[in-house]
Amino acid sequence: MKTKNIVFLGKSIDNYIAGKNGELDWLDTIPNPDQLSMGYHELMKEIDAIIMGSTSFKTVLSFDIEWPYNKPVFVLSRSLKTIPKNLEDQVTLIQGDEKSILERIHNKGFKNLYIDGGNVVQNFLKQDLIDELRLTTIPIVLGDGIPLFDVLPRSLKFEHVKTEVFCNQIVQSTYLRKRQT
Amino acid sequence: MKTKNIVFLGKSIDNYIAGKNGELDWLDTIPNPDQLSMGYHELMKEIDAIIMGSTSFKTVLSFDIEWPYNKPVFVLSRSLKTIPKNLEDQVTLIQGDEKSILERIHNKGFKNLYIDGGNVVQNFLKQDLIDELRLTTIPIVLGDGIPLFDVLPRSLKFEHVKTEVFCNQIVQSTYLRKRQT
Repeated sequence: MKTKNIVFLGKSIDNYIAGKNGELDWLDTIPNPDQLSMGYHELMKEIDAIIMGSTSFKTVLSFDIEWPYNKPVFVLSRSLKTIPKNLEDQVTLIQGDEKSILERIHNKGFKNLYIDGGNVVQNFLKQDLIDELRLTTIPIVLGDGIPLFDVLPRSLKFEHVKTEVFCNQIVQSTYLRKRQT
Repeated sequence: MKTKNIVFLGKSIDNYIAGKNGELDWLDTIPNPDQLSMGYHELMKEIDAIIMGSTSFKTVLSFDIEWPYNKPVFVLSRSLKTIPKNLEDQVTLIQGDEKSILERIHNKGFKNLYIDGGNVVQNFLKQDLIDELRLTTIPIVLGDGIPLFDVLPRSLKFEHVKTEVFCNQIVQSTYLRKRQT
């Protein structure tokens, strides 16, 4: 079964995904008059399910908007015990190491997964479980914050697929993991 | 007097400029059959002088090639006391804080400067002395190494000028510092 784990993240030039206190306002500082989704709609069409950490899940809940995902969401958390009643059909709490989680989700028939959230992405990268990186760079050097990357046990080669510039300011590069065959 | 401090660096996707032990081999893993300079020749035409740290200087010396620069080089170092005799006409040792160094170099008539080397770039960024970032991303997540960026006292906004893709694999983005006026 062909499966794919995709990272889709906005980041600063210095590779932070949020400010020190979780600030995300700098992600929206570039005017986007045509309301481009910058690859988000395409991503949503490509994936079968979403895996995110509890921090991302709580962040989405804090936005106080309608639940934004129309794909099943798996929230990877040891601490979270319950999910809001109204989301029980859409959100599943899941525990375990990354490989066993993936096996269970694949067995449910979900193959193309959107992997979201700083810790989750770092843990997946540490085990070489990311197949595609779609990184969107906002033209700011944030100086401090929550980093996208952590130290890895070894280097991972990627193949550059495409780079697009949105609104003249935002650079999005797509990379495919290049594994030895 | 209009002056400009330009950073021109190759980096991994995770923003390392060298491996843990200074390895640079991964910078040259993408075949470049047409020997594109990827902006280096243009940079050399634009600048009047180069400022680098002692690590970069020693790295260049270690390559055991002909001295590669045809512009004056200022080596910022507290430890280095002498430079090789054959380079005395081209290389000047310089000490002091970044602002006073810049003043002295500007007073010699050098306005457009190529700022090179990890520590030097980080120290210049900490004082908001970088006007232009030209960053070239090699499609590898190195996992560990010498980082391009350090924590800064505050965020720095930039304006994206252009992004080019070389050899289908190497993404180079140019950013201009956007200062409040």
